[in-house]
Amino acid sequence: MAGEKNFGIYTNPEHDLYGEEVAMPKAPGENEVTVKIIACGICGSDVHYQKEGTSGLNHVEEPMILGHEAAGIIVAVGPNVKQHKVGDRVSVEPGTPCNVCENCITGHYNGCPTLQFKSCPGYPGLLQKYVNHPARLCYNIGDLSFEEGALLEPLSVALSGVRRSGLTVGEPTIVSGAGPIGVLTALVARAAGASPLLIVDINEARLDLAKKIVPGVLTHKTDLKLTPKETAKKLQEQLGSKAKRVIECTGNEAAISTGIFSMEFAATIVIIGVGADEVKVPINYISFNEMTVKSIFRYTNTWPTLIRMIQSGVLNVKDCVSFKYGYKDSKEAFEKAADPKSTGIKTMILMDQE
Amino acid sequence: MAGEKNFGIYTNPEHDLYGEEVAMPKAPGENEVTVKIIACGICGSDVHYQKEGTSGLNHVEEPMILGHEAAGIIVAVGPNVKQHKVGDRVSVEPGTPCNVCENCITGHYNGCPTLQFKSCPGYPGLLQKYVNHPARLCYNIGDLSFEEGALLEPLSVALSGVRRSGLTVGEPTIVSGAGPIGVLTALVARAAGASPLLIVDINEARLDLAKKIVPGVLTHKTDLKLTPKETAKKLQEQLGSKAKRVIECTGNEAAISTGIFSMEFAATIVIIGVGADEVKVPINYISFNEMTVKSIFRYTNTWPTLIRMIQSGVLNVKDCVSFKYGYKDSKEAFEKAADPKSTGIKTMILMDQE
Amino acid sequence: MAGEKNFGIYTNPEHDLYGEEVAMPKAPGENEVTVKIIACGICGSDVHYQKEGTSGLNHVEEPMILGHEAAGIIVAVGPNVKQHKVGDRVSVEPGTPCNVCENCITGHYNGCPTLQFKSCPGYPGLLQKYVNHPARLCYNIGDLSFEEGALLEPLSVALSGVRRSGLTVGEPTIVSGAGPIGVLTALVARAAGASPLLIVDINEARLDLAKKIVPGVLTHKTDLKLTPKETAKKLQEQLGSKAKRVIECTGNEAAISTGIFSMEFAATIVIIGVGADEVKVPINYISFNEMTVKSIFRYTNTWPTLIRMIQSGVLNVKDCVSFKYGYKDSKEAFEKAADPKSTGIKTMILMDQE
Amino acid sequence: MAGEKNFGIYTNPEHDLYGEEVAMPKAPGENEVTVKIIACGICGSDVHYQKEGTSGLNHVEEPMILGHEAAGIIVAVGPNVKQHKVGDRVSVEPGTPCNVCENCITGHYNGCPTLQFKSCPGYPGLLQKYVNHPARLCYNIGDLSFEEGALLEPLSVALSGVRRSGLTVGEPTIVSGAGPIGVLTALVARAAGASPLLIVDINEARLDLAKKIVPGVLTHKTDLKLTPKETAKKLQEQLGSKAKRVIECTGNEAAISTGIFSMEFAATIVIIGVGADEVKVPINYISFNEMTVKSIFRYTNTWPTLIRMIQSGVLNVKDCVSFKYGYKDSKEAFEKAADPKSTGIKTMILMDQE
Ligand SMILES: NC(=O)c1ccc[n+]([C@@H]2O[C@H](COP(=O)([O-])OP(=O)(O)OC[C@H]3O[C@@H](n4cnc5c(N)ncnc54)[C@H](O)[C@@H]3O)[C@@H](O)[C@H]2O)c1
Ligand SMILES: NC(=O)c1ccc[n+]([C@@H]2O[C@H](COP(=O)([O-])OP(=O)(O)OC[C@H]3O[C@@H](n4cnc5c(N)ncnc54)[C@H](O)[C@@H]3O)[C@@H](O)[C@H]2O)c1
Ligand SMILES: NC(=O)c1ccc[n+]([C@@H]2O[C@H](COP(=O)([O-])OP(=O)(O)OC[C@H]3O[C@@H](n4cnc5c(N)ncnc54)[C@H](O)[C@@H]3O)[C@@H](O)[C@H]2O)c1
Ligand SMILES: NC(=O)c1ccc[n+]([C@@H]2O[C@H](COP(=O)([O-])OP(=O)(O)OC[C@H]3O[C@@H](n4cnc5c(N)ncnc54)[C@H](O)[C@@H]3O)[C@@H](O)[C@H]2O)c1
Ligand SMILES: [Zn+2]
Ligand SMILES: [Zn+2]
Ligand SMILES: [Zn+2]
Ligand SMILES: [Zn+2]
Repeated sequence: MAGEKNFGIYTNPEHDLYGEEVAMPKAPGENEVTVKIIACGICGSDVHYQKEGTSGLNHVEEPMILGHEAAGIIVAVGPNVKQHKVGDRVSVEPGTPCNVCENCITGHYNGCPTLQFKSCPGYPGLLQKYVNHPARLCYNIGDLSFEEGALLEPLSVALSGVRRSGLTVGEPTIVSGAGPIGVLTALVARAAGASPLLIVDINEARLDLAKKIVPGVLTHKTDLKLTPKETAKKLQEQLGSKAKRVIECTGNEAAISTGIFSMEFAATIVIIGVGADEVKVPINYISFNEMTVKSIFRYTNTWPTLIRMIQSGVLNVKDCVSFKYGYKDSKEAFEKAADPKSTGIKTMILMDQE
Repeated sequence: MAGEKNFGIYTNPEHDLYGEEVAMPKAPGENEVTVKIIACGICGSDVHYQKEGTSGLNHVEEPMILGHEAAGIIVAVGPNVKQHKVGDRVSVEPGTPCNVCENCITGHYNGCPTLQFKSCPGYPGLLQKYVNHPARLCYNIGDLSFEEGALLEPLSVALSGVRRSGLTVGEPTIVSGAGPIGVLTALVARAAGASPLLIVDINEARLDLAKKIVPGVLTHKTDLKLTPKETAKKLQEQLGSKAKRVIECTGNEAAISTGIFSMEFAATIVIIGVGADEVKVPINYISFNEMTVKSIFRYTNTWPTLIRMIQSGVLNVKDCVSFKYGYKDSKEAFEKAADPKSTGIKTMILMDQE
Repeated sequence: MAGEKNFGIYTNPEHDLYGEEVAMPKAPGENEVTVKIIACGICGSDVHYQKEGTSGLNHVEEPMILGHEAAGIIVAVGPNVKQHKVGDRVSVEPGTPCNVCENCITGHYNGCPTLQFKSCPGYPGLLQKYVNHPARLCYNIGDLSFEEGALLEPLSVALSGVRRSGLTVGEPTIVSGAGPIGVLTALVARAAGASPLLIVDINEARLDLAKKIVPGVLTHKTDLKLTPKETAKKLQEQLGSKAKRVIECTGNEAAISTGIFSMEFAATIVIIGVGADEVKVPINYISFNEMTVKSIFRYTNTWPTLIRMIQSGVLNVKDCVSFKYGYKDSKEAFEKAADPKSTGIKTMILMDQE
Repeated sequence: MAGEKNFGIYTNPEHDLYGEEVAMPKAPGENEVTVKIIACGICGSDVHYQKEGTSGLNHVEEPMILGHEAAGIIVAVGPNVKQHKVGDRVSVEPGTPCNVCENCITGHYNGCPTLQFKSCPGYPGLLQKYVNHPARLCYNIGDLSFEEGALLEPLSVALSGVRRSGLTVGEPTIVSGAGPIGVLTALVARAAGASPLLIVDINEARLDLAKKIVPGVLTHKTDLKLTPKETAKKLQEQLGSKAKRVIECTGNEAAISTGIFSMEFAATIVIIGVGADEVKVPINYISFNEMTVKSIFRYTNTWPTLIRMIQSGVLNVKDCVSFKYGYKDSKEAFEKAADPKSTGIKTMILMDQE
């Protein structure tokens, strides 16, 4: 590490995407480690920050380092660190909660009001060569690849969606949207035994890819000329029944309505997708069918579960990294990730390759 | 009963409200009883059928007998009836499910697609002097009054809302709407230990009544000039915290949004109120706070629970019957029940009094 | 069917096992069908009835027809049957609940006090050539084999155990016992995403078979010289962590204790195995770790789920039928099923083969 | 505080009970406060430590200060403390979890393996005049009395039991044992709407007291000559039905069996009582009735809930403090608390009175 230089991938209010040298992290503090990042995925929010200067409730008001889906190697450990040693291969959970507020102590640390989420404004992201991070939020990945390690962050969103849906083995399930989050959600839903499992999109190429990656998944290309009720009818026919669980990964109003109209009495839809601030929902249909609408905000306690799933062979994500770039080609990587015609799942930047 | 004449309270497509002689029920069939109705409440849906010719998905297409909140005395029992004898004082659960469809056998008989709900078109209501009904859907009320017995139907809606909310003892709870359903819901929520408990309406007189009836309840008069977010802020101040459970009993779009903005991270709102077919909801607020939106469709398995609650003193509904009319004054009773300025909770028709 | 003779496989208080002609079923009644049984598995309880004259709370007090794990073809439909036609290939759910008692209407029809379970004394079993059964308890199996169809009954026990355990995808899970129920439970747990999944027995041959059948399962041969606490320690080492879910399929007191000592704080054990009437449990260990002990009694609402699971490829039970016999060889079939040294999973009798 | 002396109530391996001067706490550290203890209850475990030198898994190996049910006034605040100021009236949650281990971040901080529980060996108890404690574990009690504040600890056990039982409003409930924990549990169960509610003991005087304190509670004196099944029968008769929830607060094997035999199909018993390390349970009865047995280990997240309950009038514990002693009379206080013939609920030591 001595003599090494640090380097970060930035955006700014002018929508530039650029790499720049940045100070090496200090020696890790108490309970902290320094991670040499190897692989870091590009999330939709990274693209939004760069292209639109905003994501969710956050705005790019000054240059900021992007990236929060990363894995690497521990190169230094601070005082009191017991679970790690130099050389450990780890995946990074990017959000650091306070651990003592009411949300934290009740198992909802994703709702910690002072959560420090790397790549949110104020907290430089993981598209760096070296970062410091709390030791307890770095998880040993054993013999997983660094790319699998980096996938654990978007997989955490997927797992959180599946958990919140209440899916139990053998239930007819629809995943709405075949973007990266939708495909990973379908993979996790399949690992949880969804039967049958149907994934829906308006983009045929993405559905083709989903079909290759998710064992046994059914696919449906939504015809945007149909109403949500009409599409729902078709989904039910394809599924062979009404859906018991719908996991919505588009954020699109029509897709949400379609999901709801697809469901049986007492069924549950989980909203993962984020779109407009307000959407119209068919509330009477929901009421007359005693349905439940849930949402997720990121995830809690997902890394150890996902690592076990991959290691035990229940989950196979090897085909989910579609494009890789050395860190000097970050601009190209971002163009690829932002391209609506691209049919890959995840674009990754390799911070140890030029 | 010999020589008795039956009599029903009708509405028709012309919006009339009138009483008329109707055939005496036949001797009760297998597992059936004949009930002499003593007290029957007027529900909002009865008023909608009469005034607007429609309620929910149903329309008044021919003369129909109204009423589904009733209690009375068993005057005849059919073959095979074991749980009842002539003279039993009972409350009537008005919907008869098929008991064998998928919804029925999974504990969701309220979702039975062939449910026969008395006072829905096709199924003459309980505003009659005599009706036949399945024995298993008539529940002995012991020393409850017939009026308390008749209240078990709207109380079932309230109980269903409280159960679905997941309310556990000591949670800060808001009931939105202080109509009959809202007030009964607040009573049940209080019996379940909601702390503190706040009821909200735009009608001060109704709030005053709620305060008299529901022990320890806080009240809030919504200022319709404020936005839902602004009102929510005020509710939180009055509650001393954000709400963990909201039970919505208005069906009003702004009230739903207010409820949502009042809640804490990971909280639950239950929608009881039925209004427009579609409503706009602040979906991002829901998502960023990982909230749950549930709905109810009537109820299941509520009568025995409510009877126990009243008998053991946990629930006191004695003050909830505000107005009573003999059956010959049904027209006045309906005017009273429909009067938005009326500040009573429940209007009841006494079928054994003229 | 005309001219066909019916035939049943009996035991009696003298512990005989024999076939005998029996009256053809009458024309099916309302909502009933006649099923020509093709394949019927032998359950542990069948063996217990024959060898010991007793199973659970029931005793063989007169000759009775055994068998409750069966699939076949519909050869006649009674009045009002809509879901079936002659020629349908179906699996039979052997217990007929009353559908209207409190347990039935609350989703617990397995607890119906008047359940009529075929092969329990008083209700002739399914080891017959022809039986009448309620149409709604015969499920179309589509392109599943009859043997797979017959497996749906023991699979229902397994599914019920997995559901009750609360298992969610990716949780470290132990199945205790590798008899037919244990192996099927492990298969369902794996389909539900258990990670890692460990199956435990004292019989190495059964573990070897489990390893072949259940993808990715770990196996452990219990050394009976060790204490439950010592064995638990070994299980945790093999699992790489404490268990979050244990599903107990032996009924053995030591195995139950071992399961409990294997678990982490707030974990759940489900008891499927039935053994002595009373067992000693390490209650303080349970308390100090805030654990949950659940049990199951058979199953509810499992057939459609299991059929979907097999059809969608989430569950593969093709290798679970180890031995097949024509119905004239039932005696040999029972000897095989009762042989503790036998290493097969399920023994089946083919009622259409001699 | 300047010039004040600190004082603690001790036991030692010789079973003495004595007061002694002890060093004043240091100035409170970061996020810490100093509390001047006013009222502190005596728990069964304090008595066990003194009389038997042991409680649960812990042993008295050197002199230790007892007490963990306390309320007082904040007299100093450390750096960074925001939720408190000098003069705040607070109740103390005695266990300090690490907040970052797996149990802590999943909402089970009661299972923190490094929990520092005041009055467990190694962690001096709260029977002191002054103690330092984490600010976040001191809760403002507003206008509650200090004695009510001190009751929040045993009430937390009761609340935890009620929560874990899954009790919903209107369910027939039995509390087994009318000691301090049983009576407080019955109070919380009643606040949660248990209907009817039956409390059971072998000590008539305790039942009489329970009847006075818990509104509407039924009582049953167990006849120890009857078998658990016979007693269960009587409890069901008194309850008017089988129980849906049983909360066991004796730790006695026969009482546990009685609780189980009292329950209906699919019901739940929560074990609070701690007795022998192992108990015999009627496992087949549990299985054939698909029951659930849960346990608790202390509590999580109870203080704010209980404070709200008392403040909103849902819970009234004013009559639960039966005996009070100045701190110089601690020996008498302990004799009183240990006296099996004493019929009070809680004995309290007032640390600001001699
Ligand atoms: N809730 C959370 O914590 C969380 C976390 C991560 C991502 N997200 C959200 O999840 C969503 C999915 O993320 P992604 O990266 O996969 O996005 P993406 O934009 O790559 O994928 C969305 C997919 O939805 C499809 N789609 C759009 N409209 C559709 C319609 N009407 N019907 C069917 N399909 C339609 C698109 O073709 C696309 O394939 C985004 O809205 C993102 O903001 C939420
Ligand atoms: N889901 C079900 O199964 C079910 C069953 C019965 C009734 N309901 C519905 O429950 C609702 C309540 O029934 P009810 O008989 O009490 O009706 P109601 O009309 O008497 O009461 C509604 C109350 O809401 C108040 N309100 C209206 N707009 C408001 C706002 N913006 N903010 C605050 N309060 C507002 C009104 O002043 C009124 O007091 C109705 O919509 C009814 O259709 C649903
Ligand atoms: N609860 C229900 O509804 C239900 C339904 C069906 C079966 N059952 C019960 O499930 C149990 C399993 O059924 P099965 O047909 O697989 O029985 P089985 O006897 O074939 O299998 C039991 C297995 O447990 C193993 N075993 C015994 N003692 C052990 C120990 N100490 N440690 C580890 N393994 C041990 C045996 O070697 C055997 O392989 C039986 O007790 C049966 O009565 C319950
Ligand atoms: N799980 C936990 O986290 C936790 C926390 C605190 C207390 N506890 C335990 O809760 C239990 C109750 O505490 P307490 O302070 O009220 O104890 P206690 O000894 O004062 O009360 C126990 C009561 O049970 C009665 N009893 C004994 N045998 C009985 C029987 N066979 N049938 C009916 N009643 C019987 C006694 O007469 C007595 O009134 C204790 O075992 C204690 O260790 C557990
Ligand atoms: Zn926090
Ligand atoms: Zn039905
Ligand atoms: Zn039944
Ligand atoms: Zn901890």
